[in-house]
Amino acid sequence: MAGRSVGETGEFEVIGAITAGLPTSAAVRVGPGDDCAVFSVDGDVAVSTDTMVENVHFRRNWSGPNDVGRKAVASAVADVEAMGARPVGLVMALTVPSELEAAWVSEFSFGVREECANAGVLLLGGDLSRGRDITATATVFGDLQGRSPVTRAGARAGDVLAVCGRLGWAAAGLTVLNRGFRSPRAVVVAHRVPEPPYGQGVVAQQAGASAMIDCSDGLLADLGHLARASGVAIDVDTSTLDVAEPQSVVAAAVGGSDPLTFILTGGDDHALLATFAASDVPDGWRVIGSVSHGEPAVTVDGAAWDGDAVGWRHF
Amino acid sequence: MAGRSVGETGEFEVIGAITAGLPTSAAVRVGPGDDCAVFSVDGDVAVSTDTMVENVHFRRNWSGPNDVGRKAVASAVADVEAMGARPVGLVMALTVPSELEAAWVSEFSFGVREECANAGVLLLGGDLSRGRDITATATVFGDLQGRSPVTRAGARAGDVLAVCGRLGWAAAGLTVLNRGFRSPRAVVVAHRVPEPPYGQGVVAQQAGASAMIDCSDGLLADLGHLARASGVAIDVDTSTLDVAEPQSVVAAAVGGSDPLTFILTGGDDHALLATFAASDVPDGWRVIGSVSHGEPAVTVDGAAWDGDAVGWRHF
Repeated sequence: MAGRSVGETGEFEVIGAITAGLPTSAAVRVGPGDDCAVFSVDGDVAVSTDTMVENVHFRRNWSGPNDVGRKAVASAVADVEAMGARPVGLVMALTVPSELEAAWVSEFSFGVREECANAGVLLLGGDLSRGRDITATATVFGDLQGRSPVTRAGARAGDVLAVCGRLGWAAAGLTVLNRGFRSPRAVVVAHRVPEPPYGQGVVAQQAGASAMIDCSDGLLADLGHLARASGVAIDVDTSTLDVAEPQSVVAAAVGGSDPLTFILTGGDDHALLATFAASDVPDGWRVIGSVSHGEPAVTVDGAAWDGDAVGWRHF
Repeated sequence: MAGRSVGETGEFEVIGAITAGLPTSAAVRVGPGDDCAVFSVDGDVAVSTDTMVENVHFRRNWSGPNDVGRKAVASAVADVEAMGARPVGLVMALTVPSELEAAWVSEFSFGVREECANAGVLLLGGDLSRGRDITATATVFGDLQGRSPVTRAGARAGDVLAVCGRLGWAAAGLTVLNRGFRSPRAVVVAHRVPEPPYGQGVVAQQAGASAMIDCSDGLLADLGHLARASGVAIDVDTSTLDVAEPQSVVAAAVGGSDPLTFILTGGDDHALLATFAASDVPDGWRVIGSVSHGEPAVTVDGAAWDGDAVGWRHF
């Protein structure tokens, strides 16, 4: 398909190149190419759907097609992890302009496959449509394997709040890109491809997590969702939050702002946030706050956060 | 939200209005509002994802928001029917411009709910994003309830080909709209909202259908997919195809073209096409052709179709 556009190549050749030699498993009864994919599950099914739109969620001059494919998978899989389910399958609906080079779609699909492999998820099928902007909607299914889902609504006074994964890296990267720079590279890469802590959703469920959410809109925003769903107050202890060196570099470069702003309000890293009885926190999770009775709200070191915010607003 | 745009109303208020008072069932463990929806199934899960893009699949001056919501559901559910599965749940990812009136989204969501009710499907969740064009991706899950899926690959020489549902109505309606007219109304309505024969996928599976596909690209195009997947030749007997009065009216109006063109090549009606042993054809299905050994190909009355085509091309 070298050098040709999607329109010149044709839908069926593009789809054939995307789906050739896809990995499969015994749980997949019917793979891509029929009216539906068919897969088997051991318990209840968790499902989430998530859209990324060109020039809203990503820019083609900031992220390569491989990055976009990986991010579309990672951000959707994180929602399944956040229910305590094992992610098993994914369908990808992709809309592209007819004049887009077919190579962009191939590289996007390599990214999708790569991140599906990282996440332990099988690409089951998809849809290819024409549109002005590149739009990717990933729908992911998780298998609860007979276990109960972990919702946002179960946090109890006395629980601790713990995190697994990075906070505020993608936001620092976006800040860098917005100012026309490409370094520190570590945070730019974090903006392009998040690294959700795959497998830790099941770990948290099995450890007895009382509530869980993935951090997509920003720590305070997502804890707000959890606090309201559970009817509890949550306090974040900033002495437990480590500012990483590249975050300090970016904060200094943008005029000495507080690097905690990235950590408290930056979204898109897809860390997992969960509440546990203090004795239940599993290895690899870090306690960063506490849950108490009170008006559903989130405080920082006991007070309302009145700093800036860099978190995600959809509209 | 009267008179306000989506951007003025805000994501969470718009989503709240969409999801308020959604019907549910015992199979839904977690509904909208958490990281995932969770539902239980009795057997393997069939899944299909399908995107509709403004000015590609629909136009806002030809279809109202209610129509668009219904069509997005119907066209996706038809794929689940075509596997012989019982459609059980749907997630809808919707991308809209910030300046779109919030009322458009409400009416779209009423259409989604209405068609979900028609199809016996529960709306489990979704995603709302910002983008230049309205883009709706419906992902539908079906429960195989312990039965085997009916793929495109099982047609056998000696089977008959049968159809359940309408052929060539939506294409006649699109022809009318393309020429600036709004009547005959029956075909225009058929373009706006297809009427897949809900429930007949399971009926066909239980009757012993050997292969099945839904007619979305056009009868000859979709039978071509089935013939290639099954490695059989399929012949369509036009003496069994009834031309409806509004189809004749439209064909005459566009210069005396053959109304059979709509029936053989028009897509978007989402009839079900299935192959059966002759004695197995269920009530409500009409035999329109036969399956034989030979090069995978589709013929019309024993010969290649050399007429015009109005069927759907994605690129």
